[in-house]
Amino acid sequence: MLFMVHMRVSPPVDEKGLQAFETAKEAERSYAMDLQERGVWRQLWRIAGLYENFSLFEVDSVEELHDLLENLPLRRWIDLSIHPLVRHPSRIDPL
Amino acid sequence: MLFMVHMRVSPPVDEKGLQAFETAKEAERSYAMDLQERGVWRQLWRIAGLYENFSLFEVDSVEELHDLLENLPLRRWIDLSIHPLVRHPSRIDPL
Amino acid sequence: MLFMVHMRVSPPVDEKGLQAFETAKEAERSYAMDLQERGVWRQLWRIAGLYENFSLFEVDSVEELHDLLENLPLRRWIDLSIHPLVRHPSRIDPL
Amino acid sequence: MLFMVHMRVSPPVDEKGLQAFETAKEAERSYAMDLQERGVWRQLWRIAGLYENFSLFEVDSVEELHDLLENLPLRRWIDLSIHPLVRHPSRIDPL
Amino acid sequence: MLFMVHMRVSPPVDEKGLQAFETAKEAERSYAMDLQERGVWRQLWRIAGLYENFSLFEVDSVEELHDLLENLPLRRWIDLSIHPLVRHPSRIDPL
Amino acid sequence: MLFMVHMRVSPPVDEKGLQAFETAKEAERSYAMDLQERGVWRQLWRIAGLYENFSLFEVDSVEELHDLLENLPLRRWIDLSIHPLVRHPSRIDPL
Amino acid sequence: MLFMVHMRVSPPVDEKGLQAFETAKEAERSYAMDLQERGVWRQLWRIAGLYENFSLFEVDSVEELHDLLENLPLRRWIDLSIHPLVRHPSRIDPL
Amino acid sequence: MLFMVHMRVSPPVDEKGLQAFETAKEAERSYAMDLQERGVWRQLWRIAGLYENFSLFEVDSVEELHDLLENLPLRRWIDLSIHPLVRHPSRIDPL
Amino acid sequence: MLFMVHMRVSPPVDEKGLQAFETAKEAERSYAMDLQERGVWRQLWRIAGLYENFSLFEVDSVEELHDLLENLPLRRWIDLSIHPLVRHPSRIDPL
Amino acid sequence: MLFMVHMRVSPPVDEKGLQAFETAKEAERSYAMDLQERGVWRQLWRIAGLYENFSLFEVDSVEELHDLLENLPLRRWIDLSIHPLVRHPSRIDPL
Repeated sequence: MLFMVHMRVSPPVDEKGLQAFETAKEAERSYAMDLQERGVWRQLWRIAGLYENFSLFEVDSVEELHDLLENLPLRRWIDLSIHPLVRHPSRIDPL
Repeated sequence: MLFMVHMRVSPPVDEKGLQAFETAKEAERSYAMDLQERGVWRQLWRIAGLYENFSLFEVDSVEELHDLLENLPLRRWIDLSIHPLVRHPSRIDPL
Repeated sequence: MLFMVHMRVSPPVDEKGLQAFETAKEAERSYAMDLQERGVWRQLWRIAGLYENFSLFEVDSVEELHDLLENLPLRRWIDLSIHPLVRHPSRIDPL
Repeated sequence: MLFMVHMRVSPPVDEKGLQAFETAKEAERSYAMDLQERGVWRQLWRIAGLYENFSLFEVDSVEELHDLLENLPLRRWIDLSIHPLVRHPSRIDPL
Repeated sequence: MLFMVHMRVSPPVDEKGLQAFETAKEAERSYAMDLQERGVWRQLWRIAGLYENFSLFEVDSVEELHDLLENLPLRRWIDLSIHPLVRHPSRIDPL
Repeated sequence: MLFMVHMRVSPPVDEKGLQAFETAKEAERSYAMDLQERGVWRQLWRIAGLYENFSLFEVDSVEELHDLLENLPLRRWIDLSIHPLVRHPSRIDPL
Repeated sequence: MLFMVHMRVSPPVDEKGLQAFETAKEAERSYAMDLQERGVWRQLWRIAGLYENFSLFEVDSVEELHDLLENLPLRRWIDLSIHPLVRHPSRIDPL
Repeated sequence: MLFMVHMRVSPPVDEKGLQAFETAKEAERSYAMDLQERGVWRQLWRIAGLYENFSLFEVDSVEELHDLLENLPLRRWIDLSIHPLVRHPSRIDPL
Repeated sequence: MLFMVHMRVSPPVDEKGLQAFETAKEAERSYAMDLQERGVWRQLWRIAGLYENFSLFEVDSVEELHDLLENLPLRRWIDLSIHPLVRHPSRIDPL
Repeated sequence: MLFMVHMRVSPPVDEKGLQAFETAKEAERSYAMDLQERGVWRQLWRIAGLYENFSLFEVDSVEELHDLLENLPLRRWIDLSIHPLVRHPSRIDPL
């Protein structure tokens, strides 16, 4: 199952919050790289000039997607929208 | 250059408009398949249950993207948003 | 897999459009009852006073959900939002 | 009387607020389970990947619904919308 | 049970539609007056300068409210929001 | 002159702010009851499950309404919309 | 009593509708000039580049404002917002 | 040149912020009165019940308007919208 | 005086409306080129993939801007927002 | 490649935040002037009365635009929208 997820990160503005955020950002990086290596986080694109990304996930169940997103180290600073995908009738490749 | 484009199609509701729309839809299909074969329309996903898609384009210039979108046979029934992409710092693959 | 779908129906205002709509409404009724009998359209609630409903679908795949929604006889007059569901941690029953 | 309630939880971002929130979350859990056992909170679904849920309540009066929602331990971090329900004309089961 | 309903009427702009609207408006008037006499449509206020009203309904059930609103002769030109009411803790009168 | 006022209260989330809010809430209660007794705050309904109310005011001037709202003890936590009312042409009672 | 009214005019796009609109526009002009001469429509400003205006009305009652706006010849193409005014505490002139 | 400016003031909710705000409010008052006396801030109306105003400015240049607004003592708590004005074709007075 | 204007064009969807639109588009082109040659429409950029543009106008008065925009041949299909400009304090060139 | 960027700055309201902001503002000024001298930040206009600007960037790649915006000293207080540009068909000059 494929899901496109649009993430918008809102870093805190105050110094103290920024520290907690920076620590979580390091963890997020490892988390994202590990999931990419496992083929779950299939694609990851940064939107130019913004703290936003498009992420393509391939999971075996909605539960897997849920757990994966809930455990994002930056989760509390991220606003998410989730789009389940199907094969487009004009697509030439398999999904 | 990579661009993620989100398209939302609004088919006309009246019978007459629907005919023009159906004709254009056929043309759109060939158009999309041709651009996929040429590697320009790199990815195309339908959002489940909706008349919307995410499209990933790889073009040599903004002008090429512009022409490509302006000539979509369904263009007048499509509402678009365009997101220029860069490599995400946590991405493990090249863009 | 469970999905909550919120549907908002916008009947046409003009007489001619209303006829096409009424015909489709009959077909929609059979379609909805059939899917309920098959256990796919598990729940269906009308929002009081409005032409809106909440629908709970249980499907085997996202593709099945997509086909089901695309074939709603009233589809062109319906505005949809789709929410994939997981078991809530405070839920006492299985999903 | 049946009401569909959509709840969106916004946990605080700062550490101190998070502590108060976590304590309330424990209380919320007991509260939700108790109301489910009493058949008032008839259904509870988590929306995948988000801190949101759909809740189906069966109450004897609007006042009962009001009291129940006002006393949610997490109430001050929850944004609510309430939808009174009636039987859908295409529903095959009783409400 | 008390419900505050906010109604916004959007009359058609074209001449033909206006005729159907005017006919329905006559029916709406009788309908509203009859329900007021029966004590169901307890209050009705026009918002100054706008084609909008606040309506206070007292009904025995959500179903009664639903039927009443669904049968408004002007229903297809009306946009509705419905607010179930309870006694305010600072209110000096019974509801 | 009659005005329908829709009030939405946003209590502070932090403990310290909550104390100031609770003190003001007590004052608000006396204020509201006094104005009801004087016939100025003619009606007051709580919207079920929400920290919102509809309030019907009868005042001699816009200035009186302004002063009354500006002096609400909870004013800084309240978001207001104000709707001047006239007699609805289908109303059977005097305003 | 003073009211600031913001009007946004949406002329029809089709030729036939434009004719009815143009006729009403002539009537609107006389209507506006007459009310200005009577001192009711105290001020009238066009927003540059847009089909919008700010209008300051001085009326003896909300009912008078309501009638005046309801009878605008262009009323069905106008979207209105109404703001009752009071003297600003920093104003040096009487209202 | 005439500009209508709509200002919405958002006073801080916390005690400390309120002190800075109150000090600035005093300065704002002198500032507004001075500009009125000089004929630049030609009109100033408070919107009833809200912390908002409509302000009519007559300036010699856009730069003058900019400086004037940038130096409002309450500027950091004010949200502004600016509308350049021209003479309305139905206006009987000169602008 | 400099104004940045953002224009969004909404071509009609039906065939008949499209003819009127295409005729006006030709006139728009001459109109725009003439104003560019006269130095009034100083800059004109198309937003890629969309029927929108940013236009920089240099005019002697707000009235001139108003007339210029009101006479755009495509005016009835264009939605406009207007932003008066001043020199940015960090700008190195004169405005 | 040309991009129009609309920036909206939201300075912090509290004193402590304001200090960090003022320091960054100084750095922003040098940053902006340097990029203007290098011809990358081709144009910069302040929107009158608001803490907003339109910025025209000419870059060799989307990556360059991304880096440039990410390194704005005021970045965490700025809300951005980015519009890739192409030559308008009615433009008389080269882009």
